[in-house]
Amino acid sequence: MFILDTLKEGLADLDARGLRRRRRIADTPCGAHMRVDGRDIVGFASNDYLGLAGHPALAAALAEGAARYGAGSGGSHLLGGHSRAHEQLEDDLAEFAGGFVDAPRALSFSTGYMANLAALTALAGRGTTLFSDALNHASLIDGARLARADVQIYPHNDAEALAAMLEASDAAVKVIVSDTVFSMDGDIAPLAALLALAERHGAWLVVDDAHGFGVLGPQGRGALAAAALRSPHLVYICTLGKAAGVAGACVIAHETVIEWLLQRARPYIFTTASPPAVAHAVSASIKIIAGQEGDARRAHLATLIERTRAMLKATRWQPVDSHTAVQPLIIGSNEAALAVAARLDEAGLWVPAIRPPTVPVGTSRLRISLSAAHSHEDLARLEMALAQLDEVNHA
Amino acid sequence: MFILDTLKEGLADLDARGLRRRRRIADTPCGAHMRVDGRDIVGFASNDYLGLAGHPALAAALAEGAARYGAGSGGSHLLGGHSRAHEQLEDDLAEFAGGFVDAPRALSFSTGYMANLAALTALAGRGTTLFSDALNHASLIDGARLARADVQIYPHNDAEALAAMLEASDAAVKVIVSDTVFSMDGDIAPLAALLALAERHGAWLVVDDAHGFGVLGPQGRGALAAAALRSPHLVYICTLGKAAGVAGACVIAHETVIEWLLQRARPYIFTTASPPAVAHAVSASIKIIAGQEGDARRAHLATLIERTRAMLKATRWQPVDSHTAVQPLIIGSNEAALAVAARLDEAGLWVPAIRPPTVPVGTSRLRISLSAAHSHEDLARLEMALAQLDEVNHA
Ligand SMILES: Cc1ncc(COP(=O)(O)O)c(C=O)c1O
Ligand SMILES: Cc1ncc(COP(=O)(O)O)c(C=O)c1O
Repeated sequence: MFILDTLKEGLADLDARGLRRRRRIADTPCGAHMRVDGRDIVGFASNDYLGLAGHPALAAALAEGAARYGAGSGGSHLLGGHSRAHEQLEDDLAEFAGGFVDAPRALSFSTGYMANLAALTALAGRGTTLFSDALNHASLIDGARLARADVQIYPHNDAEALAAMLEASDAAVKVIVSDTVFSMDGDIAPLAALLALAERHGAWLVVDDAHGFGVLGPQGRGALAAAALRSPHLVYICTLGKAAGVAGACVIAHETVIEWLLQRARPYIFTTASPPAVAHAVSASIKIIAGQEGDARRAHLATLIERTRAMLKATRWQPVDSHTAVQPLIIGSNEAALAVAARLDEAGLWVPAIRPPTVPVGTSRLRISLSAAHSHEDLARLEMALAQLDEVNHA
Repeated sequence: MFILDTLKEGLADLDARGLRRRRRIADTPCGAHMRVDGRDIVGFASNDYLGLAGHPALAAALAEGAARYGAGSGGSHLLGGHSRAHEQLEDDLAEFAGGFVDAPRALSFSTGYMANLAALTALAGRGTTLFSDALNHASLIDGARLARADVQIYPHNDAEALAAMLEASDAAVKVIVSDTVFSMDGDIAPLAALLALAERHGAWLVVDDAHGFGVLGPQGRGALAAAALRSPHLVYICTLGKAAGVAGACVIAHETVIEWLLQRARPYIFTTASPPAVAHAVSASIKIIAGQEGDARRAHLATLIERTRAMLKATRWQPVDSHTAVQPLIIGSNEAALAVAARLDEAGLWVPAIRPPTVPVGTSRLRISLSAAHSHEDLARLEMALAQLDEVNHA
């Protein structure tokens, strides 16, 4: 069976290189304390930064939305699938996170992956040059590919290098694109410097705030609010399956940009709208994020972050200088990272080893993802397990 | 504000060409009878072919899933987001719709758009030639682009032309890709002929059964079951937001193909898993589809289809020869199609006008989408409205 054999060889090759991945099965809501593959564990794997994914109020909102709108949307947004719940969510998000622009409007998507594809393909066609940070998320890279734009990669967070590249470019349309919080490093892009460059060169600045929305800025309004930036050059993407605890994403920008996406972005037009019940649950989540409960969760998360930074510095591995909920510990080879993760797993701690192609070769790492649902006890367990590992390795 | 002006010009151009689209807002579950933009209408717009999107059992399953698993998955499938509900859905679908291959396995996605991108990018890299039907869905076209494969377009449903192209090709890997039921025409691909070609040329045959799953074949097992095909060359995609009434999609194929996608497909790896509650609701939907209620709904739909065919033949416009729930009536220009849709709208009937780029220029059409939730009375209203329009136009 030749046709299957090629794939079998490919899989064997992944095994040989320590790159085979496997899924674990969760029997409970995701989060800090889960039942996974039949064991109770402390999870540092999910992106549920505020601990909202298992919040009973959101489950109730999902049920309420289902009772009101049914299970599915039944069509694309332009052909029967757009509901009051989507409309409400877009209004809520434009108000909550759209303070960076006059006349903000939001457009909702089933996933952040699709939102990124839509934003980049609609703004950056042929003849556009797209300037992309070297560590941008895969969905931005795929969006750039799909847009068929000319892509120039600038060194990670290097606004000076970017300035030189913009200066040298004579593209008719220029688009700068960056994660705000980098998903596998936890560091934050120099957003003010990027925006200054965008304005100087008449470029769009598209920022993907997947890991900042809900966590950064006043009331969790996100990375642009945290940096107090404001400009019509900004196009903002927030995903709703991480801190917001549900699913989906929104692109937020000046209403003209959004209307353009609505009319032209293929990943918006040619897909079924998300279940209205999901949009309804996200609106409930934004209320929590914006309120006192959100503040309390962010405050607790901040203490966990500081404690984790100290803890990671005390190991013999290399922490990344991150002040966000993403706390990586660089181990090096795939095998070493897997071995450390396996030892933590034995201690009932799920800290995933991240390997290429998600991170550059030779920088395989633990990605410790903190959540407001973690307790200081959880961190103490992780601290002890890492310390023991360190001893074993030194012995 | 130069940066916004370009987009404003683009929007004005769409207006001038009759291509501006606008969304309607549904206040009720989608389907045959909806409240839209504040009016009660009969809807022929959604893809809710079996009338399940508003089924109380599915809303209840969504609520049950939310109570069990929370509102969101919290992570990608490989990093914390994979749940028992996803696992169960994949098992259910492999069993229900995987009869076309030994050792079938299914992989679930948040949308069909992403499933198509994943299947094509994972199977068709550089050096692959991808043979694509001229009327394939936009998501398959985007998947081919993203894969950076060499793409050859064959004339719609023309297996002979395809045979000649395959014969002439010396690509190391060949992939044939086709919709089963074409989304804007309702006709069905010559699947047996395509499979014979795939086997002869050692090619993959990727079929997108978005509009066949749940409707065609015994128990609604889909287009491959309807055609009684079986081969390891087959890769099958079913979407779960149309007849199944919820959201998402699965790729089904031999387990080796699926494992390859799981390991390598970027649109699978780099996105948050859908809410487990959504997967849970789809599993409930498959039970309905496969059972007596599904049979009854398909039988009723079949009578509606036959009646609609007769009705459309009696108009002066051009129906497409479709035996599926998608019943197009080709009008011609954008303006004419919009005018007819507007008149039907006045009569409380929502029949969308489909224009380029969704369909070829000059073939703008009404797309009448039938649902088991329609009554014969609903069709009688449509019949009368079309007849009156015909008279007005002849006068
Ligand atoms: C930075 C970043 N952008 C976009 C995405 C994609 O969003 P989604 O998971 O909603 O598809 C992710 C993660 O999945 C991400 O980490
Ligand atoms: C033929 C076809 N394939 C794929 C899709 C995309 O699936 P989804 O709507 O789940 O993204 C659609 C419609 O949206 C479709 O009509």
